[in-house]
Amino acid sequence: MRSSMVKVKLVGAGGYGGVGAAEIFSRHPEAELVGLVDITDIGKKLSDLYPHLRDVCDLEIVDTEHDSAEADAVFFATPDRIGMRNVQRYVDAGCRVVDYSGDFRFNDTKTYAEYASRIDLDTEHFAADLLPRSAYGLAELHRDEIRNATVVGNPGCFAVSAILGAAPAIKSGLVDADRLIFDAKTGVSGAGKKASQVFHYPHRYEEMNAYKMCKHQHVMEVERELGLLVGKEVAITFTTQVVPVVRGIMTSIYAPLIDGAKYEDALDAYRTYYQDEPFVLITDESGSVGNRHIRGTNRCNLWINADRRTNTLIVMSHIDNLMKGQAGSAVQNLNIMFGLAESSGLDGPGMYP
Amino acid sequence: MRSSMVKVKLVGAGGYGGVGAAEIFSRHPEAELVGLVDITDIGKKLSDLYPHLRDVCDLEIVDTEHDSAEADAVFFATPDRIGMRNVQRYVDAGCRVVDYSGDFRFNDTKTYAEYASRIDLDTEHFAADLLPRSAYGLAELHRDEIRNATVVGNPGCFAVSAILGAAPAIKSGLVDADRLIFDAKTGVSGAGKKASQVFHYPHRYEEMNAYKMCKHQHVMEVERELGLLVGKEVAITFTTQVVPVVRGIMTSIYAPLIDGAKYEDALDAYRTYYQDEPFVLITDESGSVGNRHIRGTNRCNLWINADRRTNTLIVMSHIDNLMKGQAGSAVQNLNIMFGLAESSGLDGPGMYP
Amino acid sequence: MRSSMVKVKLVGAGGYGGVGAAEIFSRHPEAELVGLVDITDIGKKLSDLYPHLRDVCDLEIVDTEHDSAEADAVFFATPDRIGMRNVQRYVDAGCRVVDYSGDFRFNDTKTYAEYASRIDLDTEHFAADLLPRSAYGLAELHRDEIRNATVVGNPGCFAVSAILGAAPAIKSGLVDADRLIFDAKTGVSGAGKKASQVFHYPHRYEEMNAYKMCKHQHVMEVERELGLLVGKEVAITFTTQVVPVVRGIMTSIYAPLIDGAKYEDALDAYRTYYQDEPFVLITDESGSVGNRHIRGTNRCNLWINADRRTNTLIVMSHIDNLMKGQAGSAVQNLNIMFGLAESSGLDGPGMYP
Amino acid sequence: MRSSMVKVKLVGAGGYGGVGAAEIFSRHPEAELVGLVDITDIGKKLSDLYPHLRDVCDLEIVDTEHDSAEADAVFFATPDRIGMRNVQRYVDAGCRVVDYSGDFRFNDTKTYAEYASRIDLDTEHFAADLLPRSAYGLAELHRDEIRNATVVGNPGCFAVSAILGAAPAIKSGLVDADRLIFDAKTGVSGAGKKASQVFHYPHRYEEMNAYKMCKHQHVMEVERELGLLVGKEVAITFTTQVVPVVRGIMTSIYAPLIDGAKYEDALDAYRTYYQDEPFVLITDESGSVGNRHIRGTNRCNLWINADRRTNTLIVMSHIDNLMKGQAGSAVQNLNIMFGLAESSGLDGPGMYP
Repeated sequence: MRSSMVKVKLVGAGGYGGVGAAEIFSRHPEAELVGLVDITDIGKKLSDLYPHLRDVCDLEIVDTEHDSAEADAVFFATPDRIGMRNVQRYVDAGCRVVDYSGDFRFNDTKTYAEYASRIDLDTEHFAADLLPRSAYGLAELHRDEIRNATVVGNPGCFAVSAILGAAPAIKSGLVDADRLIFDAKTGVSGAGKKASQVFHYPHRYEEMNAYKMCKHQHVMEVERELGLLVGKEVAITFTTQVVPVVRGIMTSIYAPLIDGAKYEDALDAYRTYYQDEPFVLITDESGSVGNRHIRGTNRCNLWINADRRTNTLIVMSHIDNLMKGQAGSAVQNLNIMFGLAESSGLDGPGMYP
Repeated sequence: MRSSMVKVKLVGAGGYGGVGAAEIFSRHPEAELVGLVDITDIGKKLSDLYPHLRDVCDLEIVDTEHDSAEADAVFFATPDRIGMRNVQRYVDAGCRVVDYSGDFRFNDTKTYAEYASRIDLDTEHFAADLLPRSAYGLAELHRDEIRNATVVGNPGCFAVSAILGAAPAIKSGLVDADRLIFDAKTGVSGAGKKASQVFHYPHRYEEMNAYKMCKHQHVMEVERELGLLVGKEVAITFTTQVVPVVRGIMTSIYAPLIDGAKYEDALDAYRTYYQDEPFVLITDESGSVGNRHIRGTNRCNLWINADRRTNTLIVMSHIDNLMKGQAGSAVQNLNIMFGLAESSGLDGPGMYP
Repeated sequence: MRSSMVKVKLVGAGGYGGVGAAEIFSRHPEAELVGLVDITDIGKKLSDLYPHLRDVCDLEIVDTEHDSAEADAVFFATPDRIGMRNVQRYVDAGCRVVDYSGDFRFNDTKTYAEYASRIDLDTEHFAADLLPRSAYGLAELHRDEIRNATVVGNPGCFAVSAILGAAPAIKSGLVDADRLIFDAKTGVSGAGKKASQVFHYPHRYEEMNAYKMCKHQHVMEVERELGLLVGKEVAITFTTQVVPVVRGIMTSIYAPLIDGAKYEDALDAYRTYYQDEPFVLITDESGSVGNRHIRGTNRCNLWINADRRTNTLIVMSHIDNLMKGQAGSAVQNLNIMFGLAESSGLDGPGMYP
Repeated sequence: MRSSMVKVKLVGAGGYGGVGAAEIFSRHPEAELVGLVDITDIGKKLSDLYPHLRDVCDLEIVDTEHDSAEADAVFFATPDRIGMRNVQRYVDAGCRVVDYSGDFRFNDTKTYAEYASRIDLDTEHFAADLLPRSAYGLAELHRDEIRNATVVGNPGCFAVSAILGAAPAIKSGLVDADRLIFDAKTGVSGAGKKASQVFHYPHRYEEMNAYKMCKHQHVMEVERELGLLVGKEVAITFTTQVVPVVRGIMTSIYAPLIDGAKYEDALDAYRTYYQDEPFVLITDESGSVGNRHIRGTNRCNLWINADRRTNTLIVMSHIDNLMKGQAGSAVQNLNIMFGLAESSGLDGPGMYP
């Protein structure tokens, strides 16, 4: 351990995003949790809510008024439009922030307003001053901005799988950016810890279904990032589905290869693009990839295939929605922001079976 | 019950295709099982293998040599290249046949050879004389041929979901038939009852993965049928995946709408195409569909959506792979062949939860 | 079908007890559903709530005020203390009633009061006049009373598995009735359709736990029934647990054999006791029994074993909690009350896999 | 990390016991894997078999002939009667050994022979000379013997849950040791990684069943250990069941309290007995315990209850069968043998959800 651990506070500690971070920090040699804030379960230990954390994270949850722990960084594991109203005071106190919601994924008010209007949220941003000092928290594309950002907008779980899966193809110009299709399947934990009829065990165990057809809130950040890569606006087709795994996202990405572009070119583009990345693995068409490759890890595994009869690049992108799709990316961003080893706390194998 | 039940024999009785048929016949008012043939478990009752069938189907499994039951029809619930070598003698005895494999899905030797070569099978067809008297067993597209066929090639499970989901769009000319993408997820029972490492419970419970990338054996029959509808050869992109449900297929179908074609036109085309079909249900974009709608039933539920920003028709096609995808279609075909009510034995609700 | 179907109305139609009954009646040749009453989802079809019932049960749910369908029988699929306040008016209208709760499981006010006080309910019974005309709805023990009862108290799911599993041993005097232990595991559907944190899919999928230690509401009816068989008061040890199956109860029953009593004697006692029962199957120690034997069926499978080193009879009792443990028993009771074939609508095989 | 890591070799590396150890060593600050030996998958990396281990354990599996890595300790993650034939040569080379099978759970040939004969194994022990230098590897009962043992017989998973759950009650004399009943439910991973019909996903997902009635191989070691505690031979009733979780054992233990003994006395006995134990947690009857408390951890959680009406102590004992029930105990034993901190590598929280 280093002499001085980075001190992290969790706001919205009681949800899956909080428990995921607590698991990671329990193994992090350079950063530690020092405070838990939430609006429910005040006075309880996190290990009361999640008994596997006993002796690992026995901090008590406090409300905002009693939030006095000194921290270097704050994670907002909160829904949209919470962070933007509460981040400023932590910034004023010298903290750097990672926000899990859409609040800081777009670094100007106009783009935020478009995002918000698409998903029927109020379009006004209450922390507009912070937007120029914010960065989109996908390290593989924005490492330098993250390093210097005051606030990092942690990416949406579907977006992580989609952007990492499509970026090299788009950037290389080998595929037609106007005809991208993403068919994404998530595990149930993506819906969070709140019980509801559709995630009741007897209802869900043999269920699978698409939802939010063509209007999932993560679509816009995918279009934004891919647009930045290709230098023009991009509109994509994106279908979100739930299947009865608990952890994991598997996204099929279909991209028409342009005339003359071959599978091997695309494979090279992926290998080059991610050659120094600690968390992205490329598998060629002779291999195979499943959820077990990444469950419990911070990895993104990309299985690169092509249908030569239709000249279509097919990338199967696999992440754990609670790790690389949420708490893992948040810690990766923290590591970058504070100059720690990027994989600190994140190099474990998960758990199998 | 009618005075004279249609007598059906099952060859390959011990697999999921056999047990599915046994369940259906237990509720069928006009047809009954009279014999079970297999190459394993000889001398056992089907209810020894599947104890829920006790008192429901206690017939003993016999080997081919002791297969003496008189039948009007024979189901071959057997793998590729078994039916073609064994069907003739039953036909000679006056039986009509439903074969579950690819052997009789293509009614000429040339098309069969293409199918077989694609999936690395011997290309010679050992019952070529029967092919002109065979029909592709998807009732919604080939009811009249089925009625008169000697042998029906029961369709592949993925193919049922894909063809039913795409046919009206293709037939109507509203979509670009050269750019169809099918992203199909199946439950584990699709792999049959044989144990293997990848379907071992601890391995599979949190697993999801694509497999047979771009070369699943059901692709060719989809291309064949869609090609017949549009009047030209069609090449499609088709990705098969396994998710940890046991029963069910959910296929996302992406079809670019041609210039000027609207969602409402496509919805109309689906409603018209299936207006008299007892087993196909159309849900418009204001509704939603999940596996629970069809689990245990012979239905195909088509949820018709469109992404207006990319002008793409998106159809979510849901079937139970063991019912409409296998035994249910087989019985539906039998009903048609023998002039029974088409939904005889097939109008039950399945089971929930 | 018979010329005159028995007409049944469901009160509390929207829960799992209602949907289970609807599934059964869809296959019942002598009885039919004619009305659905509930306090929520008014105006919806049952098939809106449970889409697998489309075309099978499209009756609309009405509230009590609009409940005008004429019926021969009413099922109260309602919690404790609802039936007792609402049954009388249906009885006055000539209906016979099956109540799913504890309200009519004890046919005198004193015993009811003891039951109610044990589980912290109000002890007053609001339909005391009906108790002498009520019967405990476990057909294998009370067929004659059920035949003539005005109101049948449908047994608790755990109680069905426990009583059927222990009755012959107790009745025969071969075991020590003062030292019975029941270790019962239920599927999650036993908790009903209401979503809650502990049955949220991500929480439940790898969970198993005991609950209501020593105070489950079904214990008293087990003690009552076993006490009646042995002719004295009986106190039992009963542990209830939830495991992540959806349907099914597996109860281990431990009963010390008295001096001189042997396994074979006990096995004989079980075979004799249930020799004419259509829904109880006895398996001796050379066989084996699992949930798949009974899932989706109205059966109770009893696997009779003994540990000769400790001289303990061990009975594994398996039922489907939603069938023999609830809706199946209710229909079995209806069949008896109206002189129908006892297995009418209940002789199907369930579904596998 | 310490200057000199304890070097550990795995024999039988490719099974769940091997992968579990590899996961733990990836987080162990004082010990490391240096070699993998097996009779299958020679030449493959462990991360080829278990891709979540990529970059974590990429050692190659070698056969016995090529096993040249120098090690301080060897884990035999092998079935019965493998270790006894292979351990000596490692002992001669100065290694200390942890064997996962029954080979070294009984430290004299007579007791071993009784064990072997009960489960139909050959009764001869091929490493009889080592038995006096062996210890039963349940640290909470045999810490001192383990510290000095040459070979440790790692306990059976059911035995860990049973012995830890019953020991304080037995030792205290508060319960009748002649009337103990253990009702044990295991997750499917207890059966290992080998595929078989009964653990095929579609067969197992809604299945639960007892097996090996009264003759599971772990019963004898439970009787041995409890007998040592109470000072006489003990015969117990022990039922083993499988439920569809992957990881976890939940054992209900029923023990009649002797006259005058109270719940509070028993609770005290448990708290005292385990007061210094890092991995055993006691929960009183006001709390509750589920599989989530221990999944992925090395803990044993004991939930102490009593049924006062029948004067029966009821202990719900929860462990993760792959951790405290197997690889976790093995590493705990290693830590003790080599004077490392007992919870080194074992203090993580597992994973939730």
